[in-house]
Amino acid sequence: MGIVNRRITLAARPVGEPTEADFALVEAPVPELGDGEVLVRTRWLSLDPYQRGRMSSARSYAAPVELGEVITGEAVGEIVESRTRRHSPGELVVGPFGWQEWATARAGSLRAVSGAAPPSTSLHVLGMTGLTAYFGLFDVARPRPGDTVVVSAAAGAVGQVVGQLARMTGCHTVGLASAGKLEDLTETYGYDTAIDYRREDLAAALKAACPHGADVYFDNVGGAVSDAVSRRLAVGARVAVCGLVSQYNLAEPELAPRNLGFLIVSRVRMEGFLVTDYRHRFPEGLGRLQRWVEEGRLTYREDVVEGLEQAPRAFIGLLRGENRGKLLVKVADA
Amino acid sequence: MGIVNRRITLAARPVGEPTEADFALVEAPVPELGDGEVLVRTRWLSLDPYQRGRMSSARSYAAPVELGEVITGEAVGEIVESRTRRHSPGELVVGPFGWQEWATARAGSLRAVSGAAPPSTSLHVLGMTGLTAYFGLFDVARPRPGDTVVVSAAAGAVGQVVGQLARMTGCHTVGLASAGKLEDLTETYGYDTAIDYRREDLAAALKAACPHGADVYFDNVGGAVSDAVSRRLAVGARVAVCGLVSQYNLAEPELAPRNLGFLIVSRVRMEGFLVTDYRHRFPEGLGRLQRWVEEGRLTYREDVVEGLEQAPRAFIGLLRGENRGKLLVKVADA
Repeated sequence: MGIVNRRITLAARPVGEPTEADFALVEAPVPELGDGEVLVRTRWLSLDPYQRGRMSSARSYAAPVELGEVITGEAVGEIVESRTRRHSPGELVVGPFGWQEWATARAGSLRAVSGAAPPSTSLHVLGMTGLTAYFGLFDVARPRPGDTVVVSAAAGAVGQVVGQLARMTGCHTVGLASAGKLEDLTETYGYDTAIDYRREDLAAALKAACPHGADVYFDNVGGAVSDAVSRRLAVGARVAVCGLVSQYNLAEPELAPRNLGFLIVSRVRMEGFLVTDYRHRFPEGLGRLQRWVEEGRLTYREDVVEGLEQAPRAFIGLLRGENRGKLLVKVADA
Repeated sequence: MGIVNRRITLAARPVGEPTEADFALVEAPVPELGDGEVLVRTRWLSLDPYQRGRMSSARSYAAPVELGEVITGEAVGEIVESRTRRHSPGELVVGPFGWQEWATARAGSLRAVSGAAPPSTSLHVLGMTGLTAYFGLFDVARPRPGDTVVVSAAAGAVGQVVGQLARMTGCHTVGLASAGKLEDLTETYGYDTAIDYRREDLAAALKAACPHGADVYFDNVGGAVSDAVSRRLAVGARVAVCGLVSQYNLAEPELAPRNLGFLIVSRVRMEGFLVTDYRHRFPEGLGRLQRWVEEGRLTYREDVVEGLEQAPRAFIGLLRGENRGKLLVKVADA
C-alpha cells in the first residue's frame, strides 16, 4: 500500500521504572493481510498497568513482549480491509492491535465496539476495565448490602467503576487515591469516603472510615497500602486481588514484614483473578454495564493523550499514578 | 475438699521462643462448684501451637491469657461432681479445662468423649485437630480427585489427618516435614511423596513432586516454606491457611520479599479459617472421622508426655517441631 506503519517497540527491558529509552518509535510497512484477517487503522490505544509485566521476562499468565517487537495491548481500530465475511470495512472493532498505526488481526480476536457510547469507552467502562470491575467485584469479592468496601487506586480505570458498582449494591464505599483525586472519588464516582493513601495516619483514617472493619477490599496496588487495609478487615472479609501496581516497577522485590496472620484471625478469603477467565460471560457484563451507562447510573472519566508517539511517556506516568481516569492514547481521528 | 490443685500459669509473656521461666507451677485449692457446672479431674491435655498466641497480648480471635492465670486449652477430664442433670460423675468429657489438675466448667462447654476409641483421641483425630483437618480440607481447600495436595507440618496433629483425607479423595499427596519424620509421612500416613522442608533444594523437590503444580496447599507453617510452595501453585489453586507456626515465636515480624503476584498469575484463592466457626457441623465431622478410624482407613499417632509439670517443656518443643504426632500431656491415670 506504500503507507508507513509507525509502531512503538520494546527497545530494552525496563529495569525499575521504565524510561523513554526503553521504547523505540520505528517505521515499518503496513502488514500483509492473510485469509480470515482484517486490516485496521488504529484509533485508540488502551494503556494499562498490566502491560508493565509484558515488558519483563518473568513468568506470568501471558508471554512477554520480545525485544524489538511491538508493545502488545488492546486498541480500537477501524477496519480498512477485510478477508473475512464476518467483518466489513468501516466497522469499529476492539482487538489486540498493539501500539501501532496499522495492524492485522484474525476475526476471532475481535469484538464489536458498542454503538451506544463513544468508541473509546469500549476500552474502558464498556470494555476490559469495566469488565474487570464487574467480575472482580461481583464474582470474586461478592459484596452484600451493608458491607464496607475499600478500593485502592479508586480513581483509576478499574477502581472508579468498582466504587460505583459497590454503591449500587448498597455498600458503604471507601476509596484510596492520591491527594489530587479525592474530589473525583466523592463527587464523580460517589464514594462515601475518600482517603489520601499517602497520608501518614492512614491507619487512623481507615479506622474512622471503617468503624466495623472492611468487609471487602478490592486491591489494585498491593504493598504498604494493602498492609494497612489488611489490619482493618472484618471477620469474613474478602480481598479481590486485581493488581499490584505498587510492585510493578521494582527491580527487586520489596522487603516487608510478614503479616498473613490476618487471614486466620479474621477468616479472610484473598483471591486473585484475571478478567480473561470470564470471557464466556463478557456479554452478560457488557450488557449490564452498557445499560447502567445509558441510565446515567454509571459514569466514567477518560484521560486522553494525543498521538502514538506519546504512548511511552503516558505509560510511564500511568505507573506513577499521574493519570486522572482511564488512560487512552488517541492515535487517529475518525 | 482439702485437695491441692496443681496448675500451670503464665508467669511472663514470652518474648520470642518461650522458656520454662515464662510458666509457673502453682498450687491452689480445688475450685468451688457452681450451679450448672461440673467438677472434673483432668486426664489429658491437648498441646497446640495456637496456644502460643494466647500467651501474647496481640489482637487475635480470642482473648489472651492474663499474667498469673492458668494456661487455657482443651483437655479430657473425668467428672467427679456434677451440679447439672446433663452430666454424671464418672463421665469422660472434653472441655476448656486448661493446664491444671482440677477444673470446673459449665455443662454447655462440654463434649462427650467418643466411646469407640481411647479417650485421648477426642483431643486429636476424633477432636479438634481431626475436625480442623476435615473442615479445612473439605470446606476451605475443596480438593477434587486428581488434585495434587501439598501439606506443611504434614506429620503434625492436623497434617497427618489432612494427608489421609486427601488421599481418600483421590488426590496425589505431598507432605513437608523435618528429616526425622519423613518415613512417618509415607509409611504411616500414606503420603505419596515426603519432602524434608529444610533441604536446600526445596524448590527443585517441590517441582519434582508436583510436575503439574499444586492444586491445594494446606498450610500449617507460613514463612519461607510457604513462599516456596506458592511458586509451584497451579492455576486455580486453593490455599487453606490453618496455621503459621514458623512465625509464632518471632519477637518481631520477619522481613521477606513481597510475593503476592502468584495470586493473580495463578488465580489463587487463599483463605484462613478457624475450626470453631464450624461448630454447628462438628457432629457431621466427628461421625465421619470416627467411622474412618473404626474402618481402619484413618490412622493417627500420639506423642504422650507424662505429668502436668512437663507441659511447658513439651510445649516449647512443640513450637520447635520436636513432637512426633499429636502432642498430649497425660495428667492422671484412669
